[in-house]
Amino acid sequence: MRLSTVTLAGRPTWGVVEGDTFHDTGAVLAARYPDLKSAVTAGLDGVAEAVAPAATTPISEVTWLPVIPNPDKIICVGLNYEMHRKETGRAEVEHPTIFGRYANSQIGHLAPIVRPKVSTHLDFEGELAVIIGKPGRYISRADAMDHVAGYACYNDGSIRDFQYHTHQFTPGKNFPDTGAFGPWMMTPDELGPLPELRLQTRLNGVVVQDATFAQMIFDIARQIEYCSSFTRLEAGDVIVSGTPGGVGAKRNPPLWMKPGDVVEVEIDRLGTLRNTIVEE
Amino acid sequence: MRLSTVTLAGRPTWGVVEGDTFHDTGAVLAARYPDLKSAVTAGLDGVAEAVAPAATTPISEVTWLPVIPNPDKIICVGLNYEMHRKETGRAEVEHPTIFGRYANSQIGHLAPIVRPKVSTHLDFEGELAVIIGKPGRYISRADAMDHVAGYACYNDGSIRDFQYHTHQFTPGKNFPDTGAFGPWMMTPDELGPLPELRLQTRLNGVVVQDATFAQMIFDIARQIEYCSSFTRLEAGDVIVSGTPGGVGAKRNPPLWMKPGDVVEVEIDRLGTLRNTIVEE
Repeated sequence: MRLSTVTLAGRPTWGVVEGDTFHDTGAVLAARYPDLKSAVTAGLDGVAEAVAPAATTPISEVTWLPVIPNPDKIICVGLNYEMHRKETGRAEVEHPTIFGRYANSQIGHLAPIVRPKVSTHLDFEGELAVIIGKPGRYISRADAMDHVAGYACYNDGSIRDFQYHTHQFTPGKNFPDTGAFGPWMMTPDELGPLPELRLQTRLNGVVVQDATFAQMIFDIARQIEYCSSFTRLEAGDVIVSGTPGGVGAKRNPPLWMKPGDVVEVEIDRLGTLRNTIVEE
Repeated sequence: MRLSTVTLAGRPTWGVVEGDTFHDTGAVLAARYPDLKSAVTAGLDGVAEAVAPAATTPISEVTWLPVIPNPDKIICVGLNYEMHRKETGRAEVEHPTIFGRYANSQIGHLAPIVRPKVSTHLDFEGELAVIIGKPGRYISRADAMDHVAGYACYNDGSIRDFQYHTHQFTPGKNFPDTGAFGPWMMTPDELGPLPELRLQTRLNGVVVQDATFAQMIFDIARQIEYCSSFTRLEAGDVIVSGTPGGVGAKRNPPLWMKPGDVVEVEIDRLGTLRNTIVEE
């Protein structure tokens, strides 16, 4: 199943995407689930049954919002592909590198990524996002995948000069309108096994990142295990699982995204997240 | 004015503290302000007028919750006192060091700080917390203090081995029941000028941190200016403004907090935040 948060003629809702059709299950289930996070919290109970009675809209007429606009936590994993670790010159580590993104930095599919007036160092990071379904603490690697509600494409847009103001990444990872998340989340049964899936980031049609999830240093189960050791994971929490090599900052000369550019993050079977860069 | 979030006989509310009396203004204003964050968002409009008609309870009978249990953002500033910067061996920087804390790691005054079963490296960090009242982006240093709703004591309890698993601090700063915040926020008119105020952290009655806010490297106005350059500050957001020298991790031998210990953060005129350590 593919699930999205959108606005329809200005009204926020959430629903199920089948082919080119959006089913407004959010209107059918409004009393039970005011948003997609609450439906995820309930294990999507009753959602499949709400598709048939739901009003439909062509997806060309919806405005896409972040898949989960209001997660309690967005946990970002850094340096999780060997090529990216090497291009950044970082030593090998025994644990995932973790930083945070605030929810108000997120946007949806087709929304503009904003290059702020205070920087030109706007970079792409195509990533797989994991949406937590079942909450938990001290989740074992063996049980971890039972806690996943779904997956989505994410572009962890980064302002590199702010990221490197100090040794902590937070400022560069939290500019408004830089974290693109969508168009939808796909449930694990529909996506299938992760390792063989390919992620590509394209800038103006040119492939700039290309990797399979088999190349992750810490796989999704290990990430869930580690994150749940220091925090309680809640339903709707988002783990953004790291970006492959090829980021613009590590090219010579650097490749920064600029107004008018189109950036896409495509993951096999999952879909394509597309955003255009605008000047603030 | 001093404002707190509490439970009274199991019912969550918020109110005004005068001397040893809690005024349940949350009950009077429930329709307008379901929580303290919403009252802060409205500039505390009508709160002073709700004190007289509010039911009262001795503060000895309230259960203290984090001052703002549900901020959109908790922005932590690191290495913001010269002595602490030097004891950690960090170079001077032109910008504040920023990392994030998730809201579900917070507790209130007198609630236990939990030493997790996965670590014994539990450390204290007494700090001044700033609660944002007026939202904004690109706030100038000159205007910054107009955006402050109030101040509170904060103990940015840290699990040091997790903090240093990699170069990003996030895991060590987000364990459940480690971020103590209270007992109340005090409005700026009542607290008065910051620089002369002294912060002390005491462990089992022994002073372990002692500094005035004049010793901050980046003062509160500069912190608000910087944070609002990379994110939009919202009402109820919390900036935790950094800890002075003296942390347990940098002592020889290290001084870790252990079950049964009592840790206090006292700030002149503002009050004392007290918590006892318990084993998970």
